[in-house]
Amino acid sequence: MNEKKRVIGYIRSQKEEIVWLLKKLVQQPSTRGREEKAQAIVVEKCRQLGLEIDLWDLDENPQLKKHEGFHCDREEFAGNPNLVAVKRGSGKGKSLILNGHIDVVPEGSRSDWDDHPYSGKEMDGKIYGRGTTDMKGGNVALLLAMEAIFVNDIRLQGDLIFQSVIEEESGGAGTLAAVLKEYKADGAIIPEPTSMKLFPYQQGSLWFRLYIRGKSAHGGTRYEGVNAIELAHPVMEHLKGLENERNKTLKNETLYQGVEIPVPINIGVCKSGNWPSSVPDLAVLEGRFGVSPYETVEEAMKQMEDSIQDLNSKHSWFSEKPVELEWFGARWLPSKMDASHPLLSLLKQNYREVMKEEPVVEASPWGTDGGILSAFGDTPVLVFGPGITEKAHDSNEYIVIDDILDAAEIIALTIMDWCGIERPCNEKGVV
Amino acid sequence: MNEKKRVIGYIRSQKEEIVWLLKKLVQQPSTRGREEKAQAIVVEKCRQLGLEIDLWDLDENPQLKKHEGFHCDREEFAGNPNLVAVKRGSGKGKSLILNGHIDVVPEGSRSDWDDHPYSGKEMDGKIYGRGTTDMKGGNVALLLAMEAIFVNDIRLQGDLIFQSVIEEESGGAGTLAAVLKEYKADGAIIPEPTSMKLFPYQQGSLWFRLYIRGKSAHGGTRYEGVNAIELAHPVMEHLKGLENERNKTLKNETLYQGVEIPVPINIGVCKSGNWPSSVPDLAVLEGRFGVSPYETVEEAMKQMEDSIQDLNSKHSWFSEKPVELEWFGARWLPSKMDASHPLLSLLKQNYREVMKEEPVVEASPWGTDGGILSAFGDTPVLVFGPGITEKAHDSNEYIVIDDILDAAEIIALTIMDWCGIERPCNEKGVV
Repeated sequence: MNEKKRVIGYIRSQKEEIVWLLKKLVQQPSTRGREEKAQAIVVEKCRQLGLEIDLWDLDENPQLKKHEGFHCDREEFAGNPNLVAVKRGSGKGKSLILNGHIDVVPEGSRSDWDDHPYSGKEMDGKIYGRGTTDMKGGNVALLLAMEAIFVNDIRLQGDLIFQSVIEEESGGAGTLAAVLKEYKADGAIIPEPTSMKLFPYQQGSLWFRLYIRGKSAHGGTRYEGVNAIELAHPVMEHLKGLENERNKTLKNETLYQGVEIPVPINIGVCKSGNWPSSVPDLAVLEGRFGVSPYETVEEAMKQMEDSIQDLNSKHSWFSEKPVELEWFGARWLPSKMDASHPLLSLLKQNYREVMKEEPVVEASPWGTDGGILSAFGDTPVLVFGPGITEKAHDSNEYIVIDDILDAAEIIALTIMDWCGIERPCNEKGVV
Repeated sequence: MNEKKRVIGYIRSQKEEIVWLLKKLVQQPSTRGREEKAQAIVVEKCRQLGLEIDLWDLDENPQLKKHEGFHCDREEFAGNPNLVAVKRGSGKGKSLILNGHIDVVPEGSRSDWDDHPYSGKEMDGKIYGRGTTDMKGGNVALLLAMEAIFVNDIRLQGDLIFQSVIEEESGGAGTLAAVLKEYKADGAIIPEPTSMKLFPYQQGSLWFRLYIRGKSAHGGTRYEGVNAIELAHPVMEHLKGLENERNKTLKNETLYQGVEIPVPINIGVCKSGNWPSSVPDLAVLEGRFGVSPYETVEEAMKQMEDSIQDLNSKHSWFSEKPVELEWFGARWLPSKMDASHPLLSLLKQNYREVMKEEPVVEASPWGTDGGILSAFGDTPVLVFGPGITEKAHDSNEYIVIDDILDAAEIIALTIMDWCGIERPCNEKGVV
C-alpha cells in the first residue's frame, strides 16, 4: 500500500520538528492548575492540522461534578481548558479516539534532577524533563501520526477524535468531561508510557489517606508520649502484608508474568508534627491503592477497609486509637480489552511491521483514563506508547526520540487500518 | 516574721482573682508571632503593681542577631514586644530575676482536645488550655507573689526584675535580648512546669533536621523506587541507639534517678512526598536533641554528627545516598546551679515551710531560658514552678489552681529572704 510508505517516509523526515515540538511542550510545566500554556501549543498544532477544535473549561458542565465517575478535589478549572480536536471521516469507517493528557505530576525534589526539571534538554538521542515520558512524548507521537496522514492527503473513513485532556494524574475528570460531551468511539489508543509494550489491561487505582494517632508530649519527656511518626512504621508493614496477599495469585496471570508487584500499595505522602520539640500525636499518610483488572473498585476498597479494621483489632495501641481510613481525590478505574479485539490485533500487526519483532503484551502497572473511556464511554481502550514506564514520575525523566517516531509509525498505520481509507472513484477501479 | 504571714494570707485570699487572670491569659493564644495580646495583659498587671515598665521589640537592638547565643529563624518581631518590669530595691540586698515566657507552643491536633485548646475552662480545681502549665500558670504565680509583697507595703532591699519574654519555645531570643539590655541579677527563678520540683540543673537542647533520600518512581511500579518514608524508620532506630548510649551513664547521676531517658532525642516533624501516586524521594525529619548539663553543646553536636556519619558508612543505601544533618532554629543551653547555692537552700527551706514535706530536687527534662541567663547573663538560675511537667506541649494541658497558690507562697517567701526587707528606722530598734 503506497500510502503507508508515504506516511512512514514523512514521519522519518520529521525528527527535528518533533524534537522541537516536544521541547516546547516540556518547557511549559503543566502541573495541575498550570496546564494552560502547554495546552495552547497543542491547540495551535491541531489548528494547523485542520482539526475541528472543541476547547472548554471543565466547570462549564454542571453535570460533571455530579457524575459517579468524578473523583476530584480541584476547585478551579477556569483558564486551563480541555481539548478535543476532530477530523471527521467520510462516515463509513470505524471511529478512533486518540487520548493523551497534558498535565504532569510535580517534579519532586529538585536536587534529584541533574538538570532543570523542565529543561527539555536533548542528549544522546533522548529528551529530558518532567512530562517527556508521561506523556507529552506520546502526545507528540499522536500529532505526528495524524499529520503524516493528512499531509499525504489521505482521507479517513472513520472519525478521528484527538483528545488532550487535563486531570489525568488526578483521576480523569478531563476525559470524563469529554465522555459527557458524547465523545465516544469504536476504539481508543492512549499512548501512556508503556515502553512500547501493549497494555490491553490496565490497573486501576484509588487514593487513600490514613490518620494514625499517637499521644503528644514534650520532646524532653518523649517517653510520656507515643510518637505518631513511629506508629506509621507498623501501619506500613501491615499494608505490605496486604499487598503481598493481594498479589499472590495475580502473579500467575498471563499478563502479569514477571511483574514484581502487579497491584502495589504505595505510600506517597507523610505529614506529621509541627514542632521539633513535641512528640507528634498525628501522622497522616497518603497513598495509592492499585486495583486489579480482575476486581471491581468496590471489592478492592472492601479489602483495604477490612485490613485496616483487622490491624485496629489486633494491635494493642490501635485498638485504643484506631487508624482511620479515608478514600479521597483521584480514582482510576481498571480496564480490560478482550484478547481477541481487532484493534489489539491491528496494533500487534503494525508493531511487527515497523519493529520487526513480536510485541510484548502486558497489563499496565497504573491506571489510565482508559478506565473512564471504557466504563462510561463504552469505548474499548488499548494503551501503547513510547515513554519509559519506570521513568514516569521519576527524576531525570526522559524519552528516547526514536521511540516517538516508531510509535508514531505504528499508530499511523493502525489509524489507517482501523478507520479505513477513502479512495477517489477513479482509483477504485485500479488494482 | 509577721510580714510572711500577711503575704501568705493575701495569696490565699486571691484564688478567684488569679483564676480570672490565668483564664484571660490562656484565652489569648500566644503562639509564636501572636504574643501581643497576652503580653498586653501582663503589662497592664505590672503597671498596676507599680513596676517600671521596659517594653521593646526585639528588632530594636541590631546586636541581638549577631550574638553567639542567638539561634532563631523568626523574621518579624514588630508588634510582639518583650517585657521587663522592675521594682528597685533600697540597694543593699541581692537582686533577683523572675523570668517567665509568654509564648506557647501550637495546640497540635484539635481532635485530641476535649475542649477548645484555648478554653481556659475551670473544672475540678484545674484550669485547662494551651499554656496553662507551660507556663502562664507559673507567670501568674510570679505576679501574685510580687503583688502579695507590694500590697503589704513590704519594701525589698534588692532589685526585683520581672521578665515576660517571647521566643522561649524557639530558643530564647527574648531572654537573650533582656540580657543584652544588662538585665542580670544575683539569682533567678524561672517557674517552668516542674510539678513543684526544684530543678537546679537544666537539660539543654538543639533542633536538627535530617534529609533522607530515596529514589522516586511511579506508585504503580513502586518496586522500582526506594521510599524515603520507609527509610525514615532505620534512621529513627539508629537515633534510638544513640539516645540509649548517651543516657546509659547519665541515669546514674543523682539528679537523674528514676528518669527514664535523661536527655532524649525526639523526632517531632516528618514531611515527605507531595503525590499519593509517587514514591517519595525525600523525607525530612525535624527533631530535638537533648543536651546534658554535664556536656557542652559542642560535645553533643559532635556526637550526633559522628553518629549520622556512622550510619551513612554502614548502611548499604545511605552509603550511596547519605543522610544529611542540619542544625537549625532553636537552641537551649544546659545550665547548672551549684548544690550549695544559697538560692537553692532558701527555696528548699520555704518549700518545706509551705508544703510541710521535703522538696524533690532533679534535673529538668528540657531546656529553659536559664541556659541563656546563666551563660550570657552570669545569673545563677533555679527552675521551680506549679505546672505539670508531663502536660507541657500535650493536649488537654491543665494546671492545678492550688499549685499556683502554693508556688506563689514559696516564691514570695524566697523573694523576701533573698532580696531582704527594708525596715523603717523606728522598727529596727525593736526586737
